[in-house]
Amino acid sequence: MSKMTPRTLSGFMELLPAPQQQMERIMETLRNTYSLYGFTPLDTPAIESSDVLLAKGGGETEKQIYRFQKGDADLSLRFDLTVPLAKYVSLHYNDLTFPFRRYQIGKVYRGERAQRGRFREFYQADIDVIGDGKLDIANEAEIPAIIYRTFSTLGLKRFRICVNNRKILNGFYAMLSLTDRAQDIMRTVDKLDKIGSEKVAAILTGDLGVSQEQAQEILSFISINGDNQTVLSQLESYRGRDPLFDQGLEELNTVVKYLESFGVPAEHFAVDLTIARGLDYYTGTVYETTLLDHPEIGSVCSGGRYDNLAEYYTDKQLPGVGISIGLTRLFYVLGEQGMLNPDLNTAPADVLILPITEDLSPAIALATQLRDNGIRTQLHCEQKKFKQKISYADKLGIPYVIFLGEDEIKDGVVACKEMASGEQTKLEPAATIYRIKAGLDARNTGSVIRE
Amino acid sequence: MSKMTPRTLSGFMELLPAPQQQMERIMETLRNTYSLYGFTPLDTPAIESSDVLLAKGGGETEKQIYRFQKGDADLSLRFDLTVPLAKYVSLHYNDLTFPFRRYQIGKVYRGERAQRGRFREFYQADIDVIGDGKLDIANEAEIPAIIYRTFSTLGLKRFRICVNNRKILNGFYAMLSLTDRAQDIMRTVDKLDKIGSEKVAAILTGDLGVSQEQAQEILSFISINGDNQTVLSQLESYRGRDPLFDQGLEELNTVVKYLESFGVPAEHFAVDLTIARGLDYYTGTVYETTLLDHPEIGSVCSGGRYDNLAEYYTDKQLPGVGISIGLTRLFYVLGEQGMLNPDLNTAPADVLILPITEDLSPAIALATQLRDNGIRTQLHCEQKKFKQKISYADKLGIPYVIFLGEDEIKDGVVACKEMASGEQTKLEPAATIYRIKAGLDARNTGSVIRE
Repeated sequence: MSKMTPRTLSGFMELLPAPQQQMERIMETLRNTYSLYGFTPLDTPAIESSDVLLAKGGGETEKQIYRFQKGDADLSLRFDLTVPLAKYVSLHYNDLTFPFRRYQIGKVYRGERAQRGRFREFYQADIDVIGDGKLDIANEAEIPAIIYRTFSTLGLKRFRICVNNRKILNGFYAMLSLTDRAQDIMRTVDKLDKIGSEKVAAILTGDLGVSQEQAQEILSFISINGDNQTVLSQLESYRGRDPLFDQGLEELNTVVKYLESFGVPAEHFAVDLTIARGLDYYTGTVYETTLLDHPEIGSVCSGGRYDNLAEYYTDKQLPGVGISIGLTRLFYVLGEQGMLNPDLNTAPADVLILPITEDLSPAIALATQLRDNGIRTQLHCEQKKFKQKISYADKLGIPYVIFLGEDEIKDGVVACKEMASGEQTKLEPAATIYRIKAGLDARNTGSVIRE
Repeated sequence: MSKMTPRTLSGFMELLPAPQQQMERIMETLRNTYSLYGFTPLDTPAIESSDVLLAKGGGETEKQIYRFQKGDADLSLRFDLTVPLAKYVSLHYNDLTFPFRRYQIGKVYRGERAQRGRFREFYQADIDVIGDGKLDIANEAEIPAIIYRTFSTLGLKRFRICVNNRKILNGFYAMLSLTDRAQDIMRTVDKLDKIGSEKVAAILTGDLGVSQEQAQEILSFISINGDNQTVLSQLESYRGRDPLFDQGLEELNTVVKYLESFGVPAEHFAVDLTIARGLDYYTGTVYETTLLDHPEIGSVCSGGRYDNLAEYYTDKQLPGVGISIGLTRLFYVLGEQGMLNPDLNTAPADVLILPITEDLSPAIALATQLRDNGIRTQLHCEQKKFKQKISYADKLGIPYVIFLGEDEIKDGVVACKEMASGEQTKLEPAATIYRIKAGLDARNTGSVIRE
């Protein structure tokens, strides 16, 4: 028979078993952490009707969308989790209780040009809080706590959550009578890190028709920095000139005020006036999260406050605040940077049982007992040499191997070898289980990420 | 602005938060149970190149496949998890260690005609053990144990795992010199439950050209029943007439022999000679699982032994054994039958904190402390009436509500109401946490399914 050469599409992540275990551990951490803050899991279809999915217009992403016909239906694969959320909340509005807090970890699809580290199918891990008509600023203050707990539980230490408020920015541009160009100016200023202040100034005074003086004011404003209190007190000097600015400053003060109660250490947080987020729909606090040793990666967790989640589907005013982690890209980058902890147990089983008797019943009964005790157990019953079976445990990193021969069965004991130390015990099954569980507890304390 | 009416495509399951929590619990149970047997999680792309995915030919499913063009690429959504597994094992053969045990819980796509209870996007939950060249019968004997633990952990009691062996069937038809028509005969016999023995006999002697005598032998063979030992001893009477039959009988004896050691109670298991499984590639033990009170649903977990997983991709002989649960359909059916336990905690949080002071710091600090202790906590800081906030907890089934006013803060205590009993305590935070955790432990013991 002629064979088809198997391949996986470029831009689609397909992991080997060990890294997959690490990915699963990350997802479990995200699920658990998001749950601690009262977010409920959601799962929406990967396919939507194109008219529904593209009601807002796809903008830049539109040409990246996987869109196709099936029978009479014009279908598209989702390209983010926000549009499906807007649809979900509008559609099920009467069945939901607000504020509605949901997390969703799911695959999204964008047919981008394939390049290293760019994915066409990738996981996003999103949380959003949606209010009905109103949503208190306390929700915006809580987001840094969620980001902080998520990344520190994963094992990251050197990261910073940067926060700004769009009302401060919009208010500031109103003071300069530049409201009509504020979006464009912010998009330009957003590139400060990439292109430097001179080029920013050139674009401002060139294409955007801002005066030299105004450009200077803008650059001096966004260069305000220092610790949180320093930044906030410098911002105080602008107070009273624009009501939107004043409101934004109040909000920022509130977010900073509650950091400590939310358990976010000051060194993991910074007010950063250069952050605007490209998207137009953010209206309040905005967030970016950077790895201090890898600023080139850009933000690994971003989001913000918006006033109207679902205006394309409903007249209801649905303000919200949310953040998103581009999980597939983050995982890829962590791997590239050597930040995935290789000591983490990625074996498919905790124990490999090697039966040495022809009748497998005693070995099987022992496996059942181990499984009843929550120990992941594999029986190796293949016709292979003993050495090959040991090598199987070795290759997969299975931490314990149990041998069960006639002598052990007669004596009611179990021979158990800890692969790392080579230490071998002959104990009763219950004592063996106790020893293995203690060993596993010690072994599974490590986090997924190391720095 | 004109609005687009939001809708979800028919044939696509989109759950409200409470049932979604139940679905998540089921998935977690599957992940944990499969892991206990040494299966490692895998995740493959939902999109594959059409030539790779359809190398085998799609057969009946081919016209159901979501297939489309993106740029120059001819792409298809996966329609099961078996073809992607075959691709994965062939592609990554050199990086895998055999026997390779993987589980995968993922969405698959089939554009079937929409009808009640049929889904176009649905989860399959698969496990497979793949050998390199050979695979011991012990793996086939282990499968009923995995099915049993999975369904009993979910809370099902009245179910039965039915097992047959294709070698027994094929050997039997060889005895009758009907090997050339064995596949067709088995497909017909497979319909016995649906169309009855007379119609089966009519098809056999009609379309399939089987003699009256042979048809009688076939019907008498497949009507062998009773407890496992009775069936096995009746099968003994055929021994010695065909080597394949004899081998199948040996295998079946082995599967039955180890049941008890594997912890499968006899009442949950039956040898059933009518089971053949439609697919042609099963070559040994085959499995079906039926709910005793809902036989009309058909099998909720099926699979079997095959000799060649990936012959379209590789010359390597890769025998395996696997089972699959159609999770979305199962969940739908359980819901329809009222078998989803309504007492299971499906709230998004365990505790709702209602701050009564203007400064939220003490309430936030308490929330942080609860979360540090693994308690899922939501702060309700919206500008709403007290009664509305209580109603929020009530609607969502949040089991505990905490009030924190000036008096409590001054006294260093927390007022905590258990919503179900109405019982209210004023205790120090640590004691409150202890009480809540004990209550949650008691509350979370229920299983997802009730009968």
